[in-house]
Amino acid sequence: MASTDYDAEAFFADSDPPPKLDEELRAAQSFIARHAREGRRIVLITSGGTTVPLEKNTVRFLDNFSAGTRGAASAEYFLRSGHYAVIFMHRQHSLQPFSRHYSHSVNPFLSLLELQNDDVATAKGRTELFPSLAAMRPTQETQHVSPQVERRDSTQGPQIRIKTADRACLITILRSYKLIQSLGLLHNISFTTVHDYLFLLRGVSRLMGSSEDENNRPLGRQGMYYLAAAVSDFFLPATEMSEHKIQSREGSLVIEMRPVPKVLKPLVEQWSNEGFTVSFKLETDPQLLIPKARAALQRYGHQLVIGNDLNRRKFEVVFVDQQDEDWLRISQQQTEAGEREIEEDIVDKLIARHTEYIAKSSS
Amino acid sequence: MASTDYDAEAFFADSDPPPKLDEELRAAQSFIARHAREGRRIVLITSGGTTVPLEKNTVRFLDNFSAGTRGAASAEYFLRSGHYAVIFMHRQHSLQPFSRHYSHSVNPFLSLLELQNDDVATAKGRTELFPSLAAMRPTQETQHVSPQVERRDSTQGPQIRIKTADRACLITILRSYKLIQSLGLLHNISFTTVHDYLFLLRGVSRLMGSSEDENNRPLGRQGMYYLAAAVSDFFLPATEMSEHKIQSREGSLVIEMRPVPKVLKPLVEQWSNEGFTVSFKLETDPQLLIPKARAALQRYGHQLVIGNDLNRRKFEVVFVDQQDEDWLRISQQQTEAGEREIEEDIVDKLIARHTEYIAKSSS
Repeated sequence: MASTDYDAEAFFADSDPPPKLDEELRAAQSFIARHAREGRRIVLITSGGTTVPLEKNTVRFLDNFSAGTRGAASAEYFLRSGHYAVIFMHRQHSLQPFSRHYSHSVNPFLSLLELQNDDVATAKGRTELFPSLAAMRPTQETQHVSPQVERRDSTQGPQIRIKTADRACLITILRSYKLIQSLGLLHNISFTTVHDYLFLLRGVSRLMGSSEDENNRPLGRQGMYYLAAAVSDFFLPATEMSEHKIQSREGSLVIEMRPVPKVLKPLVEQWSNEGFTVSFKLETDPQLLIPKARAALQRYGHQLVIGNDLNRRKFEVVFVDQQDEDWLRISQQQTEAGEREIEEDIVDKLIARHTEYIAKSSS
Repeated sequence: MASTDYDAEAFFADSDPPPKLDEELRAAQSFIARHAREGRRIVLITSGGTTVPLEKNTVRFLDNFSAGTRGAASAEYFLRSGHYAVIFMHRQHSLQPFSRHYSHSVNPFLSLLELQNDDVATAKGRTELFPSLAAMRPTQETQHVSPQVERRDSTQGPQIRIKTADRACLITILRSYKLIQSLGLLHNISFTTVHDYLFLLRGVSRLMGSSEDENNRPLGRQGMYYLAAAVSDFFLPATEMSEHKIQSREGSLVIEMRPVPKVLKPLVEQWSNEGFTVSFKLETDPQLLIPKARAALQRYGHQLVIGNDLNRRKFEVVFVDQQDEDWLRISQQQTEAGEREIEEDIVDKLIARHTEYIAKSSS
């Protein structure tokens, strides 16, 4: 059993599907069918890290680092292009398109808001809200309180406003979010464990592979698979998992894990029906980047590997295909200043390559 | 070296402090000093799970499950009581007081907002925003667009408003957030790894232990330590860590980890100067809850263990002290309906016990 090649078929045969899989796939199917019918391209973007639970009642798990920036930013650029409907399959709580600009830590959303016509800074206001705090005096400037606070119109309660400085930016993001929603171009699916991820990836890629447009032409090459999720390399099969929290009194903890089955091969050969498939290779040792990207192309037979170094990934990536290596670099300074995102260039380049790939099949 | 008791002293002697530790502690010190001077109680709340990196360039890490709900909710109730200033030491991106009510997934914040006087649903509006999408027609109801959209006043751009249904609730939360900010009652510190956590816990508890009020009385028993963070039991000392991403081609992955040093004993005996100390015990096997809570009290000599079962923790906990066990239960139904939070009762009970504890010393 403990062979290096625990293959995908054996994994799916041995494992129970996640409880809500059917429901998720039904929703995905109607999204895919609608856009396929309208002749639109569809990209499946996977994003964020997967987890490997170490116990059935999960307290501890192994995680792969990924905030999901690459996937969430790329989704926005695919949507913006006008050519793609996007299935955004992301780790629960990882960044999402549009809302990614306002996380808990960067730009926390409550700080964007201000109250008008509010008397929270007065003893009377505090008494209403938290009676226990009525006697305390503010220690910080309370910029959010307007000067008219003491003679407020008691018929009108406090009003919420977006701070002036943040308004223009938020309006643009919000309009984009609402527009994409109203056009029905974005479909979200979330996962947590590597187990959920594998079942969802198989399910969605099979649906894309078997969908047809109104003239009964398959989606096939019009589909793209942008596999940016940081998928665990190792996992603990359910049969080897401890029922309860692992106890720690007996000295060291030793965990032996098995390789996660490689599903890129069946995705390319069986599920996606010739979809344009892009995988990512993240390394910390620059020497390994190109050789490992080449090895993956060889092994799985897909179209493209995007290689990136952990510390340079925001301003440098390399497109590796069967023919050659194509470095994409943008200014590190502009990236760090928040003026540019490399995902815009990645997506531009990918769309061009995808167009070429589609053209090749029809010629 | 590989003994079960890798003690705290050895850990701090062998490890480099996190880079921004001094800066963090200076900020905490001024917060603690101000409230100690004013004779206010201070509670240090730790919240969220810690990580254990498996590589120096972190791609993979072991994580402990915790969204940080207990800590974030408890912080609100301590603040609301009027008796405490709160140091909220939380895992980066875990839930925080007040903003916890609006996470990415539950109540995503962009969905609370609506646009008025906006023409994003018209072809003209789409052309302005994403020219590539101008030709598409909305597939979903666009409720956010007001009927006057076509004859909008072109001198006035789109306006953002909070949706009516969400406004009252958001106003209450926002007022509370602003009030606490203006009173300077809440101080945030964030950590990610267990290594950061240990250094910060030692630093902050020593500062609390050595602070004095304006009559030179030590904070001592007026301090509370509410250790709700889910701290890893095992870790990989820096000296045993791989420099680069662990390579996966050689079959199984075997990780051997060392027990994390127990810092509760030095916190109680050396750092906190008789602060009221509460630790948490989370188990999935109900048989182990009480015996393990008792063992912890015995070993560390602190005041209280709050025991909780992973699946019942939102409506049932048990207070275990040197004398007895005190079960706290609220309605499961009300909890699931979002009508009650057990943290309100936990904090009420703790405040009463803390008051007793303070009284005992002065008698």
